[in-house]
Amino acid sequence: MAQRKARGVVTVADVAEHAGVSPGTVSKALNGRGQLKSETRQRVLASAEKLGFAPNLLARSLLSGRTYTVGVLTTDSVGRFTIPLLTGAEDALGAGQMSMLLCESRGDAIREQHYLRVLMARRVDGIIITGRSSNVRPSLGQDFPIPVVYALCQSDSMEDLSVLHDDEKGAEMAVNHLVETGRSRIAHVSGPPRHAATQNRSRGAATALAAAGLSLVLGEPLHGEWSEAWGREAAQRLMRSGERFNGVFCASDQIARGVADGLREGGVAVPEDVGIVGVDNWLPMAEASRPPLTTIDLNLAELGHIAATRLLSAIEGKDAASGIERVPAFLVKRRSTEIG
Amino acid sequence: MAQRKARGVVTVADVAEHAGVSPGTVSKALNGRGQLKSETRQRVLASAEKLGFAPNLLARSLLSGRTYTVGVLTTDSVGRFTIPLLTGAEDALGAGQMSMLLCESRGDAIREQHYLRVLMARRVDGIIITGRSSNVRPSLGQDFPIPVVYALCQSDSMEDLSVLHDDEKGAEMAVNHLVETGRSRIAHVSGPPRHAATQNRSRGAATALAAAGLSLVLGEPLHGEWSEAWGREAAQRLMRSGERFNGVFCASDQIARGVADGLREGGVAVPEDVGIVGVDNWLPMAEASRPPLTTIDLNLAELGHIAATRLLSAIEGKDAASGIERVPAFLVKRRSTEIG
Repeated sequence: MAQRKARGVVTVADVAEHAGVSPGTVSKALNGRGQLKSETRQRVLASAEKLGFAPNLLARSLLSGRTYTVGVLTTDSVGRFTIPLLTGAEDALGAGQMSMLLCESRGDAIREQHYLRVLMARRVDGIIITGRSSNVRPSLGQDFPIPVVYALCQSDSMEDLSVLHDDEKGAEMAVNHLVETGRSRIAHVSGPPRHAATQNRSRGAATALAAAGLSLVLGEPLHGEWSEAWGREAAQRLMRSGERFNGVFCASDQIARGVADGLREGGVAVPEDVGIVGVDNWLPMAEASRPPLTTIDLNLAELGHIAATRLLSAIEGKDAASGIERVPAFLVKRRSTEIG
Repeated sequence: MAQRKARGVVTVADVAEHAGVSPGTVSKALNGRGQLKSETRQRVLASAEKLGFAPNLLARSLLSGRTYTVGVLTTDSVGRFTIPLLTGAEDALGAGQMSMLLCESRGDAIREQHYLRVLMARRVDGIIITGRSSNVRPSLGQDFPIPVVYALCQSDSMEDLSVLHDDEKGAEMAVNHLVETGRSRIAHVSGPPRHAATQNRSRGAATALAAAGLSLVLGEPLHGEWSEAWGREAAQRLMRSGERFNGVFCASDQIARGVADGLREGGVAVPEDVGIVGVDNWLPMAEASRPPLTTIDLNLAELGHIAATRLLSAIEGKDAASGIERVPAFLVKRRSTEIG
């Protein structure tokens, strides 16, 4: 009978000998394919375990036509929006014993083409395309030879599956929370008007205000950069406008933190005089803000988990989903909206 | 003569026929191995290019014993310290046509062992171990079967190569800059005393002060958390101490931003009355601070680039480096140290 070998060089033949079956039966048992009695499969798995068999995934790949590897192509640098997504995807892939090949195209179409060739040459089983922008991006096309899922960015083809966060419903939640905590004169401070995130958050805010029978203070959103400096400037504008306001929905935590600083330094108490809600639940901003920020968490780790799960289904030949799947956001309450 | 085929199924045989050489010669030319006339190699590469040949890396791996894949195991979640490092590593690996398999062990020893088995089963050519902590961690051992480089974290064996940032020299630069801009009464606000980063930064600050014939205001560093709230509290303590001070070296940008806010709100002008230097060059903090922060950039992308380059050398069988390689930090000047 084969002995446990020292350095992981146990082969399929060793396992076959130990289990008293053919090498082909070992392959079937380990790959979970073909017709085998459950008892035989169990015996093979027990032998593999006992001998410390570590399958050579390269050889396994040549047999199965799968590499158990997924390419992840980020269209800009990995950053605070893509990290939670990668973590969620890794959780889902790890449970299926898949690994993740990571490539950053950094918004460069030539790098993107290069990396797609690299991933295809490595015979990845599928690809997740992701990136910070929630604007629409070109599809890789329906004749792309392996499954593709778009995550956090939207393909321009509804035949693809794009898994997206829910800016609009998130914004509704933010405004509803301000209303529920007694704020009825609500302003909206947002980012650049050309961004999809800005537009979707404004639309959600408008929906929630209309449902509450309210209208926006100053009549429209204030637009600027995604920065604290813009938040401080917006606070000045609101205070100088002469309009009464007791709630501000800000389209990011950076803007919200700036608004909180600007109001405090202008003698307006948050949350006593004005409640503030941000978006992102970016902890270094939301927790360091004075006061800490109530904010909308866009649930990006869950988004990554779902994207990877959908990709695995497609790789396994199950019905591929298409269109847009929105991942629900949730509200995180902190002091900036406590009832004054 | 072979025609360009439709969907990337051009084979080595097609390239051989087009170039008028044997398939073995094509392999040598594409792998850059063996003795070949430069002219022959050029002809093969031109044919491969013309036919749109995409090598099957799986087959290539079985021939060469290499997978052109490097495992990157991060010992905690990918975050703002590991991202620039990954970007730098990817640049170095991409130039060598290597790909990166990313695993997060999140500080869990069982997950780490699991991922090491996964990476070995995938026959990666080498491994980069990285993590946020600059404290010493256990070596994988000298009998580990493939090259390993530690980046941002230090192995407890000097037979390994650990590529580290330079906290101590960085701190010296920070204090030297305060001195050069006319500050002679310098305080040091730092993180938890048990952290290696805290200790190394304090040591560097002490060295630079001694060289300038100065001693630390209050006689020792002020220790607290890595947070803005601690920076604000430290500013209060400094103001209440009754000691004169005109410079503060802070061991992180978060602390520095808190100190800047605390001083301003206490009526002390930065940089006119007091100059401040942070560490990290973390843009959302350093640029949003009022005033923007002069800070030490620990050069983490360069660190990743160097770690990957050293690993590639070891994989290619060149003399493996060992011990500690320190990557120089650099100073980024912003308004917080302008001469008042």
